Amino acid sequence: MSAALLNRLKPAVSSAIRLWNCKAPVIDHRGPASVRLYSGLMEPGAPLFRQLFESESSTYTYLLADTDTREAVLIDPVLETVDRDLQLIDQLGLKLIVAVNTHCHADHITGTGLLKKKVFGLKSCISKHSGATADIQLSEGDRIPFGKHCLTVRETPGHTDGCLTYVTGDQRMAFTGDAILIRGCGRTDFQQGCPKRLYESIHTKIFTLPAHCFIYPAHDYKGQTVSTVDEEKKFNPRLTKTLDEFVNIMNNLNLPKPKKLDISVPANLVCGLHDI
Amino acid sequence: MSAALLNRLKPAVSSAIRLWNCKAPVIDHRGPASVRLYSGLMEPGAPLFRQLFESESSTYTYLLADTDTREAVLIDPVLETVDRDLQLIDQLGLKLIVAVNTHCHADHITGTGLLKKKVFGLKSCISKHSGATADIQLSEGDRIPFGKHCLTVRETPGHTDGCLTYVTGDQRMAFTGDAILIRGCGRTDFQQGCPKRLYESIHTKIFTLPAHCFIYPAHDYKGQTVSTVDEEKKFNPRLTKTLDEFVNIMNNLNLPKPKKLDISVPANLVCGLHDI
Repeated sequence: MSAALLNRLKPAVSSAIRLWNCKAPVIDHRGPASVRLYSGLMEPGAPLFRQLFESESSTYTYLLADTDTREAVLIDPVLETVDRDLQLIDQLGLKLIVAVNTHCHADHITGTGLLKKKVFGLKSCISKHSGATADIQLSEGDRIPFGKHCLTVRETPGHTDGCLTYVTGDQRMAFTGDAILIRGCGRTDFQQGCPKRLYESIHTKIFTLPAHCFIYPAHDYKGQTVSTVDEEKKFNPRLTKTLDEFVNIMNNLNLPKPKKLDISVPANLVCGLHDI
Repeated sequence: MSAALLNRLKPAVSSAIRLWNCKAPVIDHRGPASVRLYSGLMEPGAPLFRQLFESESSTYTYLLADTDTREAVLIDPVLETVDRDLQLIDQLGLKLIVAVNTHCHADHITGTGLLKKKVFGLKSCISKHSGATADIQLSEGDRIPFGKHCLTVRETPGHTDGCLTYVTGDQRMAFTGDAILIRGCGRTDFQQGCPKRLYESIHTKIFTLPAHCFIYPAHDYKGQTVSTVDEEKKFNPRLTKTLDEFVNIMNNLNLPKPKKLDISVPANLVCGLHDI
Protein backbone atom coordinates (compact mmCIF):
# COMPACT_ATOMS: atom_id res chain seq x y z
CA MET A 1 0.00 0.00 0.00
CA SER A 2 1.45 3.35 -0.98
CA ALA A 3 2.16 6.02 1.67
CA ALA A 4 0.00 8.48 -0.25
CA LEU A 5 -2.99 6.14 -0.23
CA LEU A 6 -2.40 5.35 3.40
CA ASN A 7 -2.53 9.02 4.31
CA ARG A 8 -5.61 9.62 2.21
CA LEU A 9 -7.51 6.85 3.99
CA LYS A 10 -6.43 7.75 7.51
CA PRO A 11 -9.37 9.94 8.49
CA ALA A 12 -11.93 7.34 7.44
CA VAL A 13 -10.34 4.30 8.98
CA SER A 14 -8.37 5.81 11.82
CA SER A 15 -8.94 2.92 14.21
CA ALA A 16 -8.39 0.29 11.59
CA ILE A 17 -5.27 1.72 10.07
CA ARG A 18 -2.96 1.90 13.03
CA LEU A 19 -1.30 -1.37 12.25
CA TRP A 20 -1.35 -1.38 8.45
CA ASN A 21 1.99 -2.26 7.01
CA CYS A 22 3.43 -3.20 10.39
CA LYS A 23 5.27 -6.41 9.85
CA ALA A 24 4.05 -9.37 11.88
CA PRO A 25 6.21 -10.37 14.84
CA VAL A 26 7.70 -13.82 14.86
CA ILE A 27 5.38 -15.99 16.94
CA ASP A 28 6.92 -18.92 18.75
CA HIS A 29 4.23 -21.55 18.48
CA ARG A 30 6.25 -24.35 19.99
CA GLY A 31 4.26 -24.27 23.22
CA PRO A 32 3.49 -27.31 25.36
CA ALA A 33 1.67 -30.10 23.56
CA SER A 34 -1.44 -29.55 25.67
CA VAL A 35 -1.75 -26.07 24.25
CA ARG A 36 -1.03 -27.05 20.68
CA LEU A 37 -3.44 -30.00 20.58
CA TYR A 38 -6.68 -28.04 20.41
CA SER A 39 -7.58 -30.19 17.45
CA GLY A 40 -11.01 -29.48 15.94
CA LEU A 41 -12.11 -26.73 18.28
CA MET A 42 -10.29 -23.72 19.59
CA GLU A 43 -9.91 -24.69 23.23
CA PRO A 44 -7.47 -27.22 24.68
CA GLY A 45 -9.40 -30.27 25.84
CA ALA A 46 -12.47 -29.55 23.72
CA PRO A 47 -13.67 -32.39 21.51
CA LEU A 48 -12.53 -32.50 17.90
CA PHE A 49 -15.43 -31.15 15.88
CA ARG A 50 -16.34 -31.08 12.21
CA GLN A 51 -19.43 -29.77 10.48
CA LEU A 52 -20.22 -31.46 7.16
CA PHE A 53 -22.88 -30.62 4.58
CA GLU A 54 -24.95 -32.66 2.12
CA SER A 55 -26.12 -30.27 -0.56
CA GLU A 56 -29.12 -32.08 -2.07
CA SER A 57 -31.10 -32.10 1.19
CA SER A 58 -29.11 -29.22 2.78
CA THR A 59 -28.37 -31.49 5.74
CA TYR A 60 -25.58 -30.94 8.25
CA THR A 61 -23.76 -33.97 9.63
CA TYR A 62 -21.62 -33.44 12.72
CA LEU A 63 -18.53 -35.34 13.79
CA LEU A 64 -17.39 -35.16 17.41
CA ALA A 65 -14.46 -37.06 18.87
CA ASP A 66 -12.24 -37.34 21.91
CA THR A 67 -8.69 -36.42 20.90
CA ASP A 68 -7.18 -38.90 23.39
CA THR A 69 -9.25 -42.08 23.08
CA ARG A 70 -10.18 -41.22 19.44
CA GLU A 71 -13.77 -42.37 20.06
CA ALA A 72 -16.11 -40.56 17.70
CA VAL A 73 -19.82 -39.88 17.31
CA LEU A 74 -21.57 -38.94 14.07
CA ILE A 75 -24.82 -36.97 14.26
CA ASP A 76 -27.30 -37.18 11.37
CA PRO A 77 -25.19 -38.94 8.72
CA VAL A 78 -26.67 -38.95 5.21
CA LEU A 79 -26.68 -42.06 3.01
CA GLU A 80 -25.06 -40.33 0.03
CA THR A 81 -22.12 -38.92 2.03
CA VAL A 82 -21.24 -41.96 4.14
CA ASP A 83 -18.05 -42.61 2.20
CA ARG A 84 -16.87 -38.99 2.54
CA ASP A 85 -17.50 -39.12 6.27
CA LEU A 86 -15.73 -42.47 6.71
CA GLN A 87 -12.71 -41.25 4.78
CA LEU A 88 -12.40 -38.23 7.07
CA ILE A 89 -12.85 -40.41 10.17
CA ASP A 90 -10.13 -42.71 8.87
CA GLN A 91 -7.74 -39.87 8.03
CA LEU A 92 -8.22 -38.29 11.44
CA GLY A 93 -7.44 -41.64 13.07
CA LEU A 94 -10.81 -41.85 14.81
CA LYS A 95 -12.87 -44.85 15.91
CA LEU A 96 -16.54 -44.33 15.13
CA ILE A 97 -18.53 -45.95 17.94
CA VAL A 98 -21.99 -44.42 17.61
CA ALA A 99 -24.11 -42.87 14.82
CA VAL A 100 -27.13 -40.97 16.09
CA ASN A 101 -30.14 -39.39 14.44
CA THR A 102 -31.89 -36.34 15.84
CA HIS A 103 -35.16 -37.78 14.48
CA CYS A 104 -36.73 -39.87 11.71
CA HIS A 105 -35.92 -37.61 8.76
CA ALA A 106 -38.39 -37.02 5.93
CA ASP A 107 -36.08 -35.38 3.40
CA HIS A 108 -33.14 -37.77 3.14
CA ILE A 109 -32.21 -41.34 4.00
CA THR A 110 -30.06 -41.68 7.08
CA GLY A 111 -26.57 -43.10 6.69
CA THR A 112 -26.71 -45.12 9.90
CA GLY A 113 -27.75 -48.39 8.26
CA LEU A 114 -24.93 -48.27 5.71
CA LEU A 115 -22.47 -47.17 8.39
CA LYS A 116 -23.38 -50.22 10.48
CA LYS A 117 -22.56 -52.42 7.50
CA LYS A 118 -19.18 -50.73 7.06
CA VAL A 119 -18.04 -50.15 10.66
CA PHE A 120 -17.82 -53.22 12.87
CA GLY A 121 -19.48 -52.76 16.25
CA LEU A 122 -21.00 -49.37 15.41
CA LYS A 123 -24.28 -48.72 17.22
CA SER A 124 -27.14 -46.60 15.91
CA CYS A 125 -29.32 -44.43 18.15
CA ILE A 126 -32.64 -42.68 17.83
CA SER A 127 -35.43 -41.54 20.15
CA LYS A 128 -37.62 -44.25 21.66
CA HIS A 129 -40.55 -42.06 20.63
CA SER A 130 -39.53 -42.03 16.96
CA GLY A 131 -41.18 -45.30 16.05
CA ALA A 132 -37.94 -46.27 14.28
CA THR A 133 -35.66 -49.19 14.94
CA ALA A 134 -32.09 -48.62 16.08
CA ASP A 135 -29.61 -50.40 18.32
CA ILE A 136 -30.23 -47.97 21.14
CA GLN A 137 -33.42 -46.07 21.78
CA LEU A 138 -32.87 -42.88 23.72
CA SER A 139 -34.94 -40.82 26.11
CA GLU A 140 -34.64 -37.64 28.17
CA GLY A 141 -31.42 -37.39 30.18
CA ASP A 142 -29.63 -40.31 28.49
CA ARG A 143 -25.99 -39.76 27.76
CA ILE A 144 -23.87 -40.77 24.80
CA PRO A 145 -20.27 -40.97 25.98
CA PHE A 146 -17.23 -40.74 23.70
CA GLY A 147 -13.95 -40.74 25.58
CA LYS A 148 -14.07 -38.14 28.34
CA HIS A 149 -16.89 -36.27 26.58
CA CYS A 150 -20.57 -36.98 26.24
CA LEU A 151 -23.73 -35.81 24.58
CA THR A 152 -26.81 -35.47 26.76
CA VAL A 153 -30.25 -36.13 25.33
CA ARG A 154 -33.05 -33.57 25.58
CA GLU A 155 -36.42 -34.54 24.16
CA THR A 156 -37.66 -31.73 21.90
CA PRO A 157 -40.79 -33.06 20.16
CA GLY A 158 -43.02 -30.98 17.91
CA HIS A 159 -41.51 -31.42 14.43
CA THR A 160 -41.96 -35.15 15.10
CA ASP A 161 -42.76 -37.04 18.30
CA GLY A 162 -39.24 -38.40 18.45
CA CYS A 163 -37.11 -35.29 17.98
CA LEU A 164 -34.04 -35.07 20.19
CA THR A 165 -31.53 -32.32 20.87
CA TYR A 166 -28.04 -33.49 21.79
CA VAL A 167 -26.07 -31.20 24.11
CA THR A 168 -22.35 -31.45 24.86
CA GLY A 169 -21.43 -32.00 28.50
CA ASP A 170 -20.16 -28.43 28.88
CA GLN A 171 -23.38 -27.07 27.32
CA ARG A 172 -21.40 -25.18 24.71
CA MET A 173 -22.95 -26.90 21.71
CA ALA A 174 -26.49 -28.10 21.03
CA PHE A 175 -27.39 -30.21 18.00
CA THR A 176 -31.02 -29.33 17.59
CA GLY A 177 -32.08 -31.37 14.57
CA ASP A 178 -35.23 -29.89 13.04
CA ALA A 179 -36.55 -28.41 16.28
CA ILE A 180 -34.95 -25.00 15.93
CA LEU A 181 -33.14 -23.96 12.78
CA ILE A 182 -31.12 -20.77 12.26
CA ARG A 183 -33.80 -18.04 12.27
CA GLY A 184 -36.37 -20.76 11.59
CA CYS A 185 -37.72 -24.07 12.86
CA GLY A 186 -38.85 -27.44 11.58
CA ARG A 187 -42.26 -27.70 9.89
CA THR A 188 -45.13 -29.24 11.85
CA ASP A 189 -47.54 -30.32 9.13
CA PHE A 190 -46.78 -34.06 8.91
CA GLN A 191 -45.19 -36.92 10.90
CA GLN A 192 -46.98 -36.10 14.21
CA GLY A 193 -46.05 -32.43 13.87
CA CYS A 194 -47.57 -30.15 16.50
CA PRO A 195 -46.70 -26.43 16.66
CA LYS A 196 -47.69 -26.11 20.33
CA ARG A 197 -45.38 -28.97 21.36
CA LEU A 198 -42.55 -27.55 19.25
CA TYR A 199 -42.91 -24.10 20.79
CA GLU A 200 -42.85 -25.57 24.29
CA SER A 201 -39.90 -27.86 23.48
CA ILE A 202 -37.79 -24.99 22.21
CA HIS A 203 -38.64 -22.67 25.07
CA THR A 204 -38.18 -25.24 27.84
CA LYS A 205 -35.35 -27.40 26.47
CA ILE A 206 -33.27 -25.19 24.15
CA PHE A 207 -33.82 -21.60 25.25
CA THR A 208 -32.93 -22.68 28.82
CA LEU A 209 -29.38 -23.50 27.71
CA PRO A 210 -26.64 -20.88 28.33
CA ALA A 211 -26.99 -17.78 26.14
CA HIS A 212 -23.76 -18.46 24.27
CA CYS A 213 -24.43 -22.15 23.66
CA PHE A 214 -23.94 -22.74 19.93
CA ILE A 215 -26.93 -24.06 18.01
CA TYR A 216 -26.04 -26.50 15.25
CA PRO A 217 -29.18 -27.45 13.34
CA ALA A 218 -29.83 -30.40 11.01
CA HIS A 219 -30.36 -28.10 8.03
CA ASP A 220 -29.76 -24.67 6.66
CA TYR A 221 -30.93 -23.40 3.29
CA LYS A 222 -29.22 -20.00 3.27
CA GLY A 223 -25.55 -20.84 3.82
CA GLN A 224 -25.59 -20.17 7.55
CA THR A 225 -23.61 -22.62 9.65
CA VAL A 226 -24.24 -21.86 13.32
CA SER A 227 -26.20 -19.68 15.70
CA THR A 228 -26.44 -19.27 19.47
CA VAL A 229 -29.26 -19.55 22.01
CA ASP A 230 -28.99 -15.82 22.61
CA GLU A 231 -29.33 -14.98 18.92
CA GLU A 232 -32.34 -17.21 18.35
CA LYS A 233 -34.08 -15.86 21.44
CA LYS A 234 -33.63 -12.35 20.02
CA PHE A 235 -33.92 -12.79 16.27
CA ASN A 236 -35.79 -15.98 15.40
CA PRO A 237 -38.76 -14.58 13.48
CA ARG A 238 -41.07 -17.38 14.65
CA LEU A 239 -39.90 -18.16 18.18
CA THR A 240 -39.96 -14.53 19.29
CA LYS A 241 -43.73 -14.59 18.74
CA THR A 242 -46.38 -15.62 21.30
CA LEU A 243 -47.55 -19.23 21.30
CA ASP A 244 -50.79 -18.31 19.52
CA GLU A 245 -48.96 -16.31 16.86
CA PHE A 246 -46.47 -19.16 16.41
CA VAL A 247 -49.23 -21.73 15.97
CA ASN A 248 -50.91 -19.50 13.42
CA ILE A 249 -47.68 -19.05 11.45
CA MET A 250 -46.94 -22.78 11.46
CA ASN A 251 -50.47 -23.74 10.42
CA ASN A 252 -50.30 -21.45 7.41
CA LEU A 253 -46.89 -22.17 5.87
CA ASN A 254 -48.44 -24.17 3.00
CA LEU A 255 -45.13 -25.83 2.18
CA PRO A 256 -44.81 -28.40 -0.60
CA LYS A 257 -44.32 -32.00 0.54
CA PRO A 258 -40.62 -32.97 0.84
CA LYS A 259 -39.53 -34.58 -2.42
CA LYS A 260 -38.17 -37.69 -0.72
CA LEU A 261 -40.89 -38.06 1.94
CA ASP A 262 -42.32 -41.33 0.63
CA ILE A 263 -38.88 -42.91 0.31
CA SER A 264 -37.14 -41.42 3.32
CA VAL A 265 -39.59 -42.09 6.14
CA PRO A 266 -40.07 -45.83 5.48
CA ALA A 267 -36.30 -46.25 5.07
CA ASN A 268 -35.49 -44.23 8.17
CA LEU A 269 -37.96 -46.24 10.26
CA VAL A 270 -35.61 -49.20 9.71
CA CYS A 271 -32.31 -47.36 10.24
CA GLY A 272 -31.97 -46.40 6.58
CA LEU A 273 -31.60 -50.01 5.47
CA HIS A 274 -34.64 -49.98 3.21
CA ASP A 275 -33.80 -51.17 -0.30
CA ILE A 276 -30.06 -50.52 -0.18
CA MET B 1 -33.67 -47.69 26.43
CA SER B 2 -34.84 -50.99 27.89
CA ALA B 3 -32.66 -52.86 30.40
CA ALA B 4 -32.83 -55.96 28.20
CA LEU B 5 -31.50 -54.09 25.17
CA LEU B 6 -28.87 -52.41 27.27
CA ASN B 7 -27.59 -55.78 28.48
CA ARG B 8 -27.62 -57.25 24.99
CA LEU B 9 -25.46 -54.44 23.68
CA LYS B 10 -23.00 -54.33 26.53
CA PRO B 11 -20.34 -56.61 25.08
CA ALA B 12 -20.16 -54.68 21.84
CA VAL B 13 -20.07 -51.17 23.23
CA SER B 14 -18.50 -51.71 26.61
CA SER B 15 -16.55 -48.48 26.62
CA ALA B 16 -19.41 -46.46 25.24
CA ILE B 17 -22.11 -47.80 27.46
CA ARG B 18 -20.82 -46.91 30.89
CA LEU B 19 -22.80 -43.71 31.05
CA TRP B 20 -25.95 -44.62 29.14
CA ASN B 21 -29.05 -43.65 31.00
CA CYS B 22 -27.10 -41.78 33.65
CA LYS B 23 -28.96 -38.56 34.19
CA ALA B 24 -27.01 -35.39 33.51
CA PRO B 25 -25.79 -33.47 36.54
CA VAL B 26 -27.04 -29.95 36.99
CA ILE B 27 -24.34 -27.70 35.53
CA ASP B 28 -24.00 -24.25 37.02
CA HIS B 29 -23.12 -22.15 34.01
CA ARG B 30 -23.24 -18.84 35.80
CA GLY B 31 -19.45 -18.53 35.77
CA PRO B 32 -17.58 -15.24 35.52
CA ALA B 33 -18.46 -13.15 32.50
CA SER B 34 -14.99 -13.66 31.03
CA VAL B 35 -15.67 -17.38 30.85
CA ARG B 36 -19.16 -17.07 29.48
CA LEU B 37 -18.35 -14.54 26.76
CA TYR B 38 -16.64 -16.88 24.33
CA SER B 39 -18.88 -15.50 21.64
CA GLY B 40 -18.30 -16.95 18.18
CA LEU B 41 -15.41 -19.22 18.98
CA MET B 42 -14.88 -21.59 21.85
CA GLU B 43 -12.11 -19.78 23.70
CA PRO B 44 -12.51 -16.68 25.86
CA GLY B 45 -10.96 -13.70 24.09
CA ALA B 46 -11.05 -15.32 20.64
CA PRO B 47 -12.65 -13.27 17.88
CA LEU B 48 -16.27 -13.86 17.04
CA PHE B 49 -16.28 -16.04 13.94
CA ARG B 50 -18.85 -17.10 11.39
CA GLN B 51 -18.49 -19.18 8.26
CA LEU B 52 -21.09 -18.46 5.57
CA PHE B 53 -21.72 -20.23 2.27
CA GLU B 54 -22.93 -19.13 -1.16
CA SER B 55 -24.24 -22.23 -2.88
CA GLU B 56 -24.16 -21.26 -6.58
CA SER B 57 -20.39 -20.72 -6.64
CA SER B 58 -19.73 -22.84 -3.50
CA THR B 59 -17.95 -19.87 -1.95
CA TYR B 60 -17.26 -19.41 1.74
CA THR B 61 -17.47 -15.93 3.23
CA TYR B 62 -15.95 -15.41 6.67
CA LEU B 63 -16.93 -12.92 9.32
CA LEU B 64 -14.49 -12.07 12.11
CA ALA B 65 -15.06 -9.50 14.82
CA ASP B 66 -13.73 -8.22 18.09
CA THR B 67 -16.32 -8.88 20.80
CA ASP B 68 -15.36 -5.70 22.69
CA THR B 69 -14.97 -2.99 20.04
CA ARG B 70 -17.43 -4.81 17.69
CA GLU B 71 -15.15 -4.02 14.72
CA ALA B 72 -15.63 -6.64 12.04
CA VAL B 73 -13.91 -7.88 8.89
CA LEU B 74 -15.58 -9.79 6.06
CA ILE B 75 -13.44 -12.08 3.90
CA ASP B 76 -14.57 -12.90 0.35
CA PRO B 77 -18.12 -11.56 0.39
CA VAL B 78 -20.28 -12.59 -2.59
CA LEU B 79 -22.53 -10.12 -4.42
CA GLU B 80 -25.65 -12.28 -4.10
CA THR B 81 -25.35 -12.77 -0.33
CA VAL B 82 -24.46 -9.22 0.73
CA ASP B 83 -27.89 -8.62 2.29
CA ARG B 84 -27.73 -11.85 4.30
CA ASP B 85 -24.29 -10.92 5.58
CA LEU B 86 -25.30 -7.38 6.48
CA GLN B 87 -28.37 -8.61 8.35
CA LEU B 88 -26.20 -10.92 10.45
CA ILE B 89 -23.67 -8.15 11.09
CA ASP B 90 -26.49 -5.87 12.18
CA GLN B 91 -28.09 -8.49 14.44
CA LEU B 92 -24.76 -9.27 16.08
CA GLY B 93 -24.26 -5.56 16.74
CA LEU B 94 -21.04 -5.39 14.74
CA LYS B 95 -19.42 -2.53 12.84
CA LEU B 96 -18.06 -3.70 9.51
CA ILE B 97 -14.88 -1.73 8.83
CA VAL B 98 -13.12 -3.74 6.13
CA ALA B 99 -14.12 -6.17 3.35
CA VAL B 100 -11.21 -8.11 1.90
CA ASN B 101 -10.78 -10.42 -1.04
CA THR B 102 -8.28 -13.25 -1.11
CA HIS B 103 -7.89 -12.63 -4.84
CA CYS B 104 -9.63 -11.48 -8.01
CA HIS B 105 -12.23 -14.26 -8.25
CA ALA B 106 -13.21 -15.84 -11.57
CA ASP B 107 -16.34 -17.72 -10.49
CA HIS B 108 -18.42 -15.08 -8.73
CA ILE B 109 -18.67 -11.32 -8.38
CA THR B 110 -17.29 -9.96 -5.15
CA GLY B 111 -19.66 -8.24 -2.74
CA THR B 112 -17.16 -5.55 -1.78
CA GLY B 113 -18.42 -2.94 -4.23
CA LEU B 114 -22.02 -3.28 -3.10
CA LEU B 115 -20.95 -3.34 0.55
CA LYS B 116 -19.12 -0.05 0.06
CA LYS B 117 -22.35 1.47 -1.23
CA LYS B 118 -24.28 0.19 1.78
CA VAL B 119 -21.80 0.64 4.66
CA PHE B 120 -20.48 4.15 5.21
CA GLY B 121 -16.70 4.29 5.60
CA LEU B 122 -16.15 0.63 4.72
CA LYS B 123 -12.81 -0.01 3.01
CA SER B 124 -12.11 -2.74 0.48
CA CYS B 125 -8.79 -4.57 0.27
CA ILE B 126 -7.06 -6.80 -2.26
CA SER B 127 -3.49 -7.69 -3.18
CA LYS B 128 -1.44 -5.03 -4.91
CA HIS B 129 -0.44 -7.76 -7.36
CA SER B 130 -4.06 -8.54 -8.30
CA GLY B 131 -4.38 -5.83 -10.92
CA ALA B 132 -7.69 -4.89 -9.31
CA THR B 133 -8.74 -1.61 -7.78
CA ALA B 134 -9.61 -1.40 -4.08
CA ASP B 135 -9.29 1.17 -1.33
CA ILE B 136 -6.28 -0.57 0.12
CA GLN B 137 -3.79 -2.68 -1.78
CA LEU B 138 -2.04 -5.21 0.38
CA SER B 139 1.35 -6.89 0.32
CA GLU B 140 3.34 -9.42 2.36
CA GLY B 141 3.33 -8.75 6.09
CA ASP B 142 0.59 -6.12 6.07
CA ARG B 143 -1.87 -6.33 8.90
CA ILE B 144 -5.61 -5.78 8.97
CA PRO B 145 -6.56 -4.83 12.51
CA PHE B 146 -10.04 -5.19 14.00
CA GLY B 147 -10.20 -4.30 17.66
CA LYS B 148 -7.50 -6.17 19.54
CA HIS B 149 -7.20 -8.75 16.78
CA CYS B 150 -5.64 -8.63 13.34
CA LEU B 151 -5.21 -10.58 10.16
CA THR B 152 -1.69 -10.80 8.73
CA VAL B 153 -1.16 -10.96 4.99
CA ARG B 154 0.86 -13.75 3.38
CA GLU B 155 1.34 -13.61 -0.37
CA THR B 156 0.48 -17.02 -1.85
CA PRO B 157 0.50 -16.57 -5.65
CA GLY B 158 0.08 -19.41 -8.15
CA HIS B 159 -3.68 -19.61 -8.69
CA THR B 160 -3.40 -15.92 -9.61
CA ASP B 161 -0.55 -13.44 -9.17
CA GLY B 162 -2.47 -11.62 -6.46
CA CYS B 163 -3.57 -14.45 -4.17
CA LEU B 164 -3.31 -13.71 -0.46
CA THR B 165 -3.70 -15.86 2.64
CA TYR B 166 -4.96 -14.05 5.73
CA VAL B 167 -3.74 -15.44 9.06
CA THR B 168 -5.12 -14.52 12.49
CA GLY B 169 -2.64 -13.00 14.94
CA ASP B 170 -2.50 -16.18 17.03
CA GLN B 171 -1.92 -18.28 13.88
CA ARG B 172 -4.90 -20.47 14.70
CA MET B 173 -6.82 -19.73 11.52
CA ALA B 174 -5.68 -19.21 7.93
CA PHE B 175 -8.03 -18.03 5.19
CA THR B 176 -6.35 -19.46 2.16
CA GLY B 177 -8.58 -18.37 -0.71
CA ASP B 178 -8.00 -20.58 -3.74
CA ALA B 179 -4.37 -21.40 -2.90
CA ILE B 180 -5.04 -24.54 -0.92
CA LEU B 181 -8.53 -26.05 -0.70
CA ILE B 182 -9.60 -28.97 1.50
CA ARG B 183 -7.81 -31.95 -0.09
CA GLY B 184 -7.35 -29.86 -3.23
CA CYS B 185 -6.03 -26.54 -4.53
CA GLY B 186 -6.95 -23.76 -6.91
CA ARG B 187 -6.59 -24.36 -10.64
CA THR B 188 -3.64 -22.80 -12.46
CA ASP B 189 -4.78 -22.75 -16.08
CA PHE B 190 -5.87 -19.09 -16.44
CA GLN B 191 -5.42 -15.65 -14.82
CA GLN B 192 -1.60 -15.89 -14.48
CA GLY B 193 -1.89 -19.38 -13.01
CA CYS B 194 1.42 -21.16 -12.45
CA PRO B 195 1.61 -24.56 -10.75
CA LYS B 196 5.24 -24.12 -9.70
CA ARG B 197 4.49 -20.83 -7.95
CA LEU B 198 1.41 -22.31 -6.26
CA TYR B 199 3.35 -25.31 -4.97
CA GLU B 200 6.06 -23.05 -3.56
CA SER B 201 3.52 -20.66 -2.03
CA ILE B 202 1.71 -23.43 -0.21
CA HIS B 203 4.87 -25.10 1.03
CA THR B 204 6.60 -21.90 2.19
CA LYS B 205 3.67 -19.77 3.36
CA ILE B 206 0.91 -22.18 4.49
CA PHE B 207 2.61 -25.44 5.42
CA THR B 208 4.98 -23.44 7.67
CA LEU B 209 2.05 -22.42 9.89
CA PRO B 210 1.47 -24.43 13.10
CA ALA B 211 0.24 -27.99 12.46
CA HIS B 212 -3.13 -27.35 14.07
CA CYS B 213 -3.77 -24.03 12.36
CA PHE B 214 -7.22 -24.28 10.81
CA ILE B 215 -7.43 -23.88 7.04
CA TYR B 216 -10.56 -22.08 5.86
CA PRO B 217 -10.61 -22.04 2.05
CA ALA B 218 -12.62 -19.84 -0.34
CA HIS B 219 -14.52 -22.84 -1.69
CA ASP B 220 -15.53 -26.38 -1.03
CA TYR B 221 -17.55 -28.55 -3.37
CA LYS B 222 -18.03 -31.62 -1.15
CA GLY B 223 -19.63 -30.19 1.98
CA GLN B 224 -16.40 -29.94 3.95
CA THR B 225 -16.02 -26.81 6.06
CA VAL B 226 -12.51 -26.77 7.51
CA SER B 227 -9.17 -28.55 7.56
CA THR B 228 -5.83 -28.07 9.31
CA VAL B 229 -2.26 -27.57 8.13
CA ASP B 230 -1.40 -30.98 9.55
CA GLU B 231 -4.19 -32.71 7.64
CA GLU B 232 -3.36 -31.11 4.32
CA LYS B 233 0.32 -31.91 4.70
CA LYS B 234 -0.63 -35.56 5.21
CA PHE B 235 -3.68 -36.07 3.01
CA ASN B 236 -3.85 -33.46 0.27
CA PRO B 237 -3.69 -35.67 -2.84
CA ARG B 238 -1.85 -32.99 -4.86
CA LEU B 239 0.38 -31.26 -2.33
CA THR B 240 1.81 -34.48 -0.97
CA LYS B 241 3.37 -35.05 -4.40
CA THR B 242 6.76 -33.80 -5.61
CA LEU B 243 6.91 -30.48 -7.46
CA ASP B 244 7.26 -32.23 -10.81
CA GLU B 245 4.33 -34.55 -10.12
CA PHE B 246 2.24 -31.60 -8.93
CA VAL B 247 2.99 -29.58 -12.08
CA ASN B 248 2.07 -32.56 -14.21
CA ILE B 249 -1.24 -33.04 -12.36
CA MET B 250 -2.13 -29.35 -12.62
CA ASN B 251 -1.26 -29.15 -16.32
CA ASN B 252 -3.56 -32.06 -17.12
CA LEU B 253 -6.74 -31.28 -15.21
CA ASN B 254 -8.59 -30.24 -18.38
CA LEU B 255 -11.26 -28.40 -16.41
CA PRO B 256 -14.09 -26.55 -18.13
CA LYS B 257 -13.89 -22.76 -18.00
CA PRO B 258 -15.74 -21.26 -15.00
CA LYS B 259 -19.26 -20.33 -16.07
CA LYS B 260 -18.96 -16.76 -14.84
CA LEU B 261 -15.34 -16.12 -15.89
CA ASP B 262 -16.12 -13.49 -18.51
CA ILE B 263 -18.43 -11.60 -16.17
CA SER B 264 -16.63 -12.06 -12.87
CA VAL B 265 -13.07 -11.08 -13.70
CA PRO B 266 -13.86 -7.70 -15.33
CA ALA B 267 -16.27 -6.90 -12.47
CA ASN B 268 -13.84 -7.97 -9.79
CA LEU B 269 -11.05 -5.89 -11.31
CA VAL B 270 -13.14 -2.86 -10.32
CA CYS B 271 -14.22 -4.05 -6.86
CA GLY B 272 -17.31 -5.84 -8.16
CA LEU B 273 -18.93 -2.58 -9.24
CA HIS B 274 -19.21 -3.57 -12.88
CA ASP B 275 -22.75 -3.20 -14.19
CA ILE B 276 -24.56 -3.30 -10.85
